[in-house]
Amino acid sequence: MKLLDSLNFPEDLKKLDKRENIILSQELREFLINSVSQTGGHLGSNLGVVELTLSLFQAFDFDKDKIVWDVGHQSYVYKILTGRKDGFKKLRQLNGMSGFPKLNESTYDYFGTGHSSTSISAALGIARARDLNKEDYKVIAVIGDGALTGGMALEALNDVGFRKTNLIVILNDNQMSISTNVGGLSRYLNKLRIAPRYNRLKTEINASLEQSGIGKNIAGKISKVKDSIKQLVVPSMFFENIGVKYIGPIDGHDIDAMTEVLKMAKEVEGPVIIHTLTQKGKGYALAEKSSTKYHSVGPFNLESGELNVSPKNSYSKAFGEALIKLSEKDEKIVAITAAMPEGTGLKCFAERFKERFFDVGIAEQHAVTLAAGMASNGLKPVFAVYSTFLQRAFDQVIHDVCIQNLPVVFAIDRAGIVGDDGETHQGINDISYLSMIPNIHIVAPKCLEEVEIILEWALNKNAPVAIRYPRGGNVIDSLVPIKKVEEGKWEEINSGVKVCIIATGKMVQNAMMAKDILYEKGLNPSIVNATFIKPIDKNFLQNLKDKGYNILTIEDNVLHGGLGSSIKDCLIKMDYKGTIRSLGYDDEFIPQGNVDALYKAYKLDCESISKAVIELYS
Amino acid sequence: MKLLDSLNFPEDLKKLDKRENIILSQELREFLINSVSQTGGHLGSNLGVVELTLSLFQAFDFDKDKIVWDVGHQSYVYKILTGRKDGFKKLRQLNGMSGFPKLNESTYDYFGTGHSSTSISAALGIARARDLNKEDYKVIAVIGDGALTGGMALEALNDVGFRKTNLIVILNDNQMSISTNVGGLSRYLNKLRIAPRYNRLKTEINASLEQSGIGKNIAGKISKVKDSIKQLVVPSMFFENIGVKYIGPIDGHDIDAMTEVLKMAKEVEGPVIIHTLTQKGKGYALAEKSSTKYHSVGPFNLESGELNVSPKNSYSKAFGEALIKLSEKDEKIVAITAAMPEGTGLKCFAERFKERFFDVGIAEQHAVTLAAGMASNGLKPVFAVYSTFLQRAFDQVIHDVCIQNLPVVFAIDRAGIVGDDGETHQGINDISYLSMIPNIHIVAPKCLEEVEIILEWALNKNAPVAIRYPRGGNVIDSLVPIKKVEEGKWEEINSGVKVCIIATGKMVQNAMMAKDILYEKGLNPSIVNATFIKPIDKNFLQNLKDKGYNILTIEDNVLHGGLGSSIKDCLIKMDYKGTIRSLGYDDEFIPQGNVDALYKAYKLDCESISKAVIELYS
Repeated sequence: MKLLDSLNFPEDLKKLDKRENIILSQELREFLINSVSQTGGHLGSNLGVVELTLSLFQAFDFDKDKIVWDVGHQSYVYKILTGRKDGFKKLRQLNGMSGFPKLNESTYDYFGTGHSSTSISAALGIARARDLNKEDYKVIAVIGDGALTGGMALEALNDVGFRKTNLIVILNDNQMSISTNVGGLSRYLNKLRIAPRYNRLKTEINASLEQSGIGKNIAGKISKVKDSIKQLVVPSMFFENIGVKYIGPIDGHDIDAMTEVLKMAKEVEGPVIIHTLTQKGKGYALAEKSSTKYHSVGPFNLESGELNVSPKNSYSKAFGEALIKLSEKDEKIVAITAAMPEGTGLKCFAERFKERFFDVGIAEQHAVTLAAGMASNGLKPVFAVYSTFLQRAFDQVIHDVCIQNLPVVFAIDRAGIVGDDGETHQGINDISYLSMIPNIHIVAPKCLEEVEIILEWALNKNAPVAIRYPRGGNVIDSLVPIKKVEEGKWEEINSGVKVCIIATGKMVQNAMMAKDILYEKGLNPSIVNATFIKPIDKNFLQNLKDKGYNILTIEDNVLHGGLGSSIKDCLIKMDYKGTIRSLGYDDEFIPQGNVDALYKAYKLDCESISKAVIELYS
Repeated sequence: MKLLDSLNFPEDLKKLDKRENIILSQELREFLINSVSQTGGHLGSNLGVVELTLSLFQAFDFDKDKIVWDVGHQSYVYKILTGRKDGFKKLRQLNGMSGFPKLNESTYDYFGTGHSSTSISAALGIARARDLNKEDYKVIAVIGDGALTGGMALEALNDVGFRKTNLIVILNDNQMSISTNVGGLSRYLNKLRIAPRYNRLKTEINASLEQSGIGKNIAGKISKVKDSIKQLVVPSMFFENIGVKYIGPIDGHDIDAMTEVLKMAKEVEGPVIIHTLTQKGKGYALAEKSSTKYHSVGPFNLESGELNVSPKNSYSKAFGEALIKLSEKDEKIVAITAAMPEGTGLKCFAERFKERFFDVGIAEQHAVTLAAGMASNGLKPVFAVYSTFLQRAFDQVIHDVCIQNLPVVFAIDRAGIVGDDGETHQGINDISYLSMIPNIHIVAPKCLEEVEIILEWALNKNAPVAIRYPRGGNVIDSLVPIKKVEEGKWEEINSGVKVCIIATGKMVQNAMMAKDILYEKGLNPSIVNATFIKPIDKNFLQNLKDKGYNILTIEDNVLHGGLGSSIKDCLIKMDYKGTIRSLGYDDEFIPQGNVDALYKAYKLDCESISKAVIELYS
């Protein structure tokens, strides 16, 4: 019988010897690969932290010690080892287990994550509460080298280094975020990493441990070891400068070494950072080789590694291709990503226009203001970013781009429900948080084939423009793309009677599916594609009012401050007295699940749409 | 005749000799002190950069070289020296000159600022555009040591250090942001600052210059000088680690030394940071001594330094006092500020409860997630922050606080129009960007006297709560504070007929003033204090609908997604057929100016309110 099936987690973990730990790590890898091949999920990051997680359980007691996993997509092993193995059957499914730590999922999850770079701040808050509560336990943050470049992680380091709070930060350095890391800090870590004293460090730590056991004065010894490491590794220390002690680098796949270092770190007074080196995808040859591809996957074939998702056309791909085409004609166009060249479809642009492509790392705030600077000096920057991550740069969109009315194009990918990643990743806020900002234009293609013409318009608008489009591709293929973008103009794609559906983006496709259902019932509502979310088409609305139509608005966004809200405000000013109803997300967070299941649950599927329309006819 | 009045700026500046520069610096100081004593404005930061700015003009040619002033409240001297001296008569007034750099104010302003920590990103964007445009000039960012701790500045440094873009960053180190700086980085800079090699540095630079003149191979020489400085000052270099060359520290009040160093920096390949030491308030004894007080001032008496603004009660003060009172009874309460202990009214709390007060530096993102961590571990954190700066932490409010439904209280000061600081600082977005987030409660006291009872309610709500209140204090003193906070309940403070005014916060006071005007015309609208902006009082609205009232909503916030919008959405669902009108800010940025003048201009003053009400009666 396997250890994974026979042990009680986490109680039994401390009893394991070296050999058993190695066996268990193999079993964990097998389980992860098998399980994720069936459900999809984050693979590479979890394969990379198997030994690191096992050593955490050797050194700490998570019934009292508290841990925060940055981003959280590397928390699968921790979930298994805290008794949640069965949850993997419904990983990331509606009502199933989350792919991230979640406060309400387990008492072992001390803080929920999802977005990058929050762990040091959160762990510091937990540690300071511990101190004020006069409690005694350890608080640990595990953060990747990619996440460390996010501004808030550096803000947190600056704070922790000043107040000297007891906190253990594990820097899980795999030279990757989702893609290869960039930035001066990354280059610096690389210096640490390739320093030839790496093995010597291990020897010294072992020697030091042999001499001392785990005793009271180990802290002093560590200091000494550490100082010599510091001398050895590189002459200057980024972390020590801001008041955080540094130990490293350590092989994150060596359970014994990691365990010993973690135990030593427990004795250090004040904040300490442990720099551990791991390999993303470790133990699955395909994932080791193509770590970006296997970062987050759908179900896949175990042997061939082939992903079961057919490589259909997607908005990201359409965007990337359109951008290349337009950039060939206009050398002022440049592209910016915050560590997502693949996800945003910019990979080919990056290869084709190396000098005009800027990957700034996980740094959305900087990305936006960098774009503003470029735009102020004659370039046409496009920042391609997921809807949920642009939230990080809300202030910069207002302050640096829109107040100055600078021509920055925001290519907002993953707008609307994204599905499996759940609450933290749904891109359902952008219409609201952007519509409230003066000077910006918000547009949405109703189908893949409109991406290029809209992007071209945006790049020539000479003002801020946001283009929002969903994850994936077309749902129906029968739509005729618009021939021309006219500012603030909507497109009537079905001329009907008495009721008008105003939908935007992907929801136009859902509305068209609803039309077929309604047609069978003898109903024929007008259907309007709101290409422009801002400004809205006031003439169109005036016309609807004059003709006495009832109106249904549909958007893959929260209702508050959304397209429907803009439409209502306008109609109320016109003293419209018909009936308006709006479909979208009400005042609650939308959980993980299959996108279509979520549309159904939140009444954005074609059946719910037709039901809402029928009510407007009665 | 004074140099300040006889010279043509900036052309004549390069002709000045050492003595004339010193005379001019004295004249500039006198002008600043005189001028700001009449109009109000930022004083200390500008007195601190007189010589620095003069040396910038010696070393650069701002007809082609481009400069970005971080925050921008230290740009007055630059404004004078680029021909805007006359603008100081209407500094920060409606249609007058801005207190910050502004793209549309002068061709010498290359990027507008206002919020902290944007300059390196913006300057980097400008520099990269220069390189792609194949142009040849220098790009300079001037950033304070306080602003450097903002996450986006560090994100930018990480990027600039990686790509090696030619960029000159001047670190204007005065050990202050608005208050004294905190953080590990600040402590590190202090190490650099107090190193005993400071004078030696100057000697070496001079020696080096004498040997070389300003020639082609000076770059190599600088490297050498710099290396020796590096050895001398501290053994490790934060900036060099991430790929940015470091020169410093230099006395920022020594025009000749600064000029020489700036000229040297022009020859350096790749990014370089010049660490210059200045004193805030330099040359005005009172401002040197109380630099926080004279950071930003209203008009003041030149001799006594007495500020003409009477020390009236303010919401900030009421908040600070209430927090102390409540914290005496509840030891779980802690307070957080992002570098604004004075402005937010937390100064006394910080003195009274040293261990429970956390100034995290200019780091709003970290502040919010730190609060979330604390709340997850049993504390009751209050983050006191200006409305406009909380925009920086929009994602953290959603992701770390509200998704997890953690009991963090946001004490949102300067909500609504703030006046003189203009577009970048108006606190008129918070209702909209917070209302769209599930789980949060948004409340507003209608008068100073309600702050305590509302804060107490918030601290015991065990969920996220935002309390918004304006700059300044009560406008009318006759309001009776509520006795009890009932969740989601509004308060009818005048029972009238046919028309109902629903106002929130300070606008309740404006509505009450309008009532007096309307009363004289024989009209008596109901007036409702919407203590709760979220959730709204649906029963109250149902009642208004049933009684057939027309409705006027009033808020000191943008209309899109604001309180009026929530009310309209609710009434539409109820099939309300009356007339609703909303006062607030339409789709445009609100410029600087006197608060009352702005209310008038944007129809939130009592006359405009009464006019709107009269229309609802007809």
